[in-house]
Amino acid sequence: MTVHPDVLQKLIDALPPNTVITDAGIVDSYRQDHALDPNAGMPQAVVRANSTADVQATLRWASIHAVPVVPRGAGTSLSGGSSGVEGGITLSLERMTNVDVDPVARVAVCQPGALNVEVKQAAAALGYWYPPDPSSYEICSIGGNAATNAGGLCCVKYGVTTDYVLGMEVVLADGTAIRLGGPQLKDVAGLSLTKLFIGSEGTLGVITELTLRLLPAPSPFSTLVATFDSIESAARAVVAITGKTRPSMLELMDGGSINAVEDLLRMGLDRSVGALLLARSDAPGDAAADEIEIVRAACEEHGGFDIFTTDDQQEGEQFAVVRRSTLIAMERVGSLLLEDVGVAVPKLPELVHGIEKIAERTSTTIVCVAHAGDGNAHPIIAYSPDDPDGERRARIAFGEIMDLAVALGGTITGEHGVGRLKTQWLPDQLGDDVIALTGRIKDALDPDRILNPGVII
Amino acid sequence: MTVHPDVLQKLIDALPPNTVITDAGIVDSYRQDHALDPNAGMPQAVVRANSTADVQATLRWASIHAVPVVPRGAGTSLSGGSSGVEGGITLSLERMTNVDVDPVARVAVCQPGALNVEVKQAAAALGYWYPPDPSSYEICSIGGNAATNAGGLCCVKYGVTTDYVLGMEVVLADGTAIRLGGPQLKDVAGLSLTKLFIGSEGTLGVITELTLRLLPAPSPFSTLVATFDSIESAARAVVAITGKTRPSMLELMDGGSINAVEDLLRMGLDRSVGALLLARSDAPGDAAADEIEIVRAACEEHGGFDIFTTDDQQEGEQFAVVRRSTLIAMERVGSLLLEDVGVAVPKLPELVHGIEKIAERTSTTIVCVAHAGDGNAHPIIAYSPDDPDGERRARIAFGEIMDLAVALGGTITGEHGVGRLKTQWLPDQLGDDVIALTGRIKDALDPDRILNPGVII
Repeated sequence: MTVHPDVLQKLIDALPPNTVITDAGIVDSYRQDHALDPNAGMPQAVVRANSTADVQATLRWASIHAVPVVPRGAGTSLSGGSSGVEGGITLSLERMTNVDVDPVARVAVCQPGALNVEVKQAAAALGYWYPPDPSSYEICSIGGNAATNAGGLCCVKYGVTTDYVLGMEVVLADGTAIRLGGPQLKDVAGLSLTKLFIGSEGTLGVITELTLRLLPAPSPFSTLVATFDSIESAARAVVAITGKTRPSMLELMDGGSINAVEDLLRMGLDRSVGALLLARSDAPGDAAADEIEIVRAACEEHGGFDIFTTDDQQEGEQFAVVRRSTLIAMERVGSLLLEDVGVAVPKLPELVHGIEKIAERTSTTIVCVAHAGDGNAHPIIAYSPDDPDGERRARIAFGEIMDLAVALGGTITGEHGVGRLKTQWLPDQLGDDVIALTGRIKDALDPDRILNPGVII
Repeated sequence: MTVHPDVLQKLIDALPPNTVITDAGIVDSYRQDHALDPNAGMPQAVVRANSTADVQATLRWASIHAVPVVPRGAGTSLSGGSSGVEGGITLSLERMTNVDVDPVARVAVCQPGALNVEVKQAAAALGYWYPPDPSSYEICSIGGNAATNAGGLCCVKYGVTTDYVLGMEVVLADGTAIRLGGPQLKDVAGLSLTKLFIGSEGTLGVITELTLRLLPAPSPFSTLVATFDSIESAARAVVAITGKTRPSMLELMDGGSINAVEDLLRMGLDRSVGALLLARSDAPGDAAADEIEIVRAACEEHGGFDIFTTDDQQEGEQFAVVRRSTLIAMERVGSLLLEDVGVAVPKLPELVHGIEKIAERTSTTIVCVAHAGDGNAHPIIAYSPDDPDGERRARIAFGEIMDLAVALGGTITGEHGVGRLKTQWLPDQLGDDVIALTGRIKDALDPDRILNPGVII
């Protein structure tokens, strides 16, 4: 379905010049996000909002004319959360990029289109730190981070996006703009609406401003890297470590991901190992060395070998770069289906073992990296774009991995969001009563269901 | 309004023996909570639930017969959140007290009637730590903590209750029990419903189980106590401290509260000072001494004197006991109205100054303590129960303090909840659009509005 040209003209007239984009080539570039969903729909137009007023005008128009609206930050969703809806409007926030840091209140007030890295840099320029760090932090938007409650590598010690959002401005489906929370650190007045919008993936409203809590700059970190014969042994080391201490990073790569990154970066990584564990401690002063020793002992106890430690920041950061390069490295291997399952940490060995079994059973290539300290794994399923049967088996594996996570009492998505790619699996995890409740809340906020249809619900 | 005896009999029949209490004396003891609201209504009966099934049966019955239900933990609400509704049912969770700690997953699975201290102790017995610590932690229930998103003294570094709730079982108004989240640390599947129930004060559902994240036991702490000529100077020191570091406790007492506690405890506190600041560092190893030095320098810069530091745990804990004793000490002074306003930390000096002005202008006795590092102040207004004009002036001051907090961009409640005592001020803070949205969510979850009527909405 498409909107009548006269109706679209009303939107064009309601917004500043050059805000509604209808050029076919440009609109096509907004059809998919980083999930590259082949089934993504073609929007009829893209609104590049300049202001909250533009967002309000767009939603007011969309409500009146019952037009679906897909909010979009930087388009880096890995679950199709900002992929297009056929005939709908994609509402891009990419032009709304202001970041103001208040060093006394220790908050950053940001527009949603600012990149995560821009928030980090603005905070760092005044000696502060915005912790959440998705692997895509250099290219993903802070609004998208809030919409998905994004995580990252620091979460194991420093939490996820929702832990840092103190307040927001959000535009409801009918165009009403409301303000929630603010720079006060504690606030329990009324329902926890700020928290409800975080992670709602654009299905309840469009965030137009965020007030983010900042921390003092972290201490320098120490790094430990250990290798293992198998990913299961490494996962058992993770369980032992997290029972004893809180490293500031605890990441896992399996042999397949190590080889893919080595193919890309040629850093001299050992291609023969089964898994690599990367841990950081940012405990202040001598405490970092103590914490690294705890991690070392747990690794050795579970078969870790070639254990390397460094206090050099750049050398340590290189290992994080290795970890973050996995997705780019795998994009050279083939078409990808990216998973994001999560379990309680003690179930991590069972999860990674089960993923290996699924790869065998479905004859698919699956490499696995994980924010291991959180029990959050990213199996990456690769297939040749020219092999329909390979794609079919990859899609079976994709579903089976989610089934496994749910069977282990875990989640189908730890930090990427449900998007459009995982909606059909959501009832398996949540159950019918929770899905029904979700629908009632959706109807309370977006009765015409114009906001990001197909996502979550 | 009361329920017909035949209808009440159906509830009695639906529940185990000795679960529905109708004895007038016992029921009367559930009329008020710690807010001692004189306008609290008399429940018709009290249900002391033994299980989730009892909660379900009670809510199913209440939905059918449109009977108001007030969920109640330990009844320590300071805002009337669990005070009675005339003719309604008070649903007490005090019998549901199980606490199971899983040391491998590092979570505690608790029933709502368990006391906060019981959760802390069960975790500590296995070497773990449940941080949230309301001043009432020895007598308040973990379910009430979740319902109000309770804070405490550790929040300045370790966050509030919502930061620790990974999952829950909650019974909806119609008696449906749902499970949300679980022991997995990261989970963004679907809307953030767990977060929505936290802080909903029993207006959206009744929490029957909580899965709480535990941390490794904290390091020993160092303590600094500084005195100041005025609470404003102390508040300015707080702003300077929080701009530089993250102490694990940063509490403020004014001269009036120091004197009230000294009257109670006779510890030799200096009655002549304007304010006392209590800071802790639990940074590991030598880092604690470094952090204490940062705090000391900020205090000295803002007129702090008689600065005392100790690494002795018991000696340091005595100062926390002093701080936590304020409310009990003030209960000897007169009838009380307890405030819980919050502002962005840089506004704290203006807030405490304004509270002093309100005390002068209304000729009321107001002492002030604060979780200063969070900008969350607890002015305590005392009046003689025999002085109606004093009570009238106290109530004016109560409202004016909330007006001041809202004028400073802050909140009418940082951690106690809106309860029944602050509902009328809530629209001033949230605005009509947010109140309308709140009502729509309430209707989606509790269409007959049987759950805790008068609270928030």
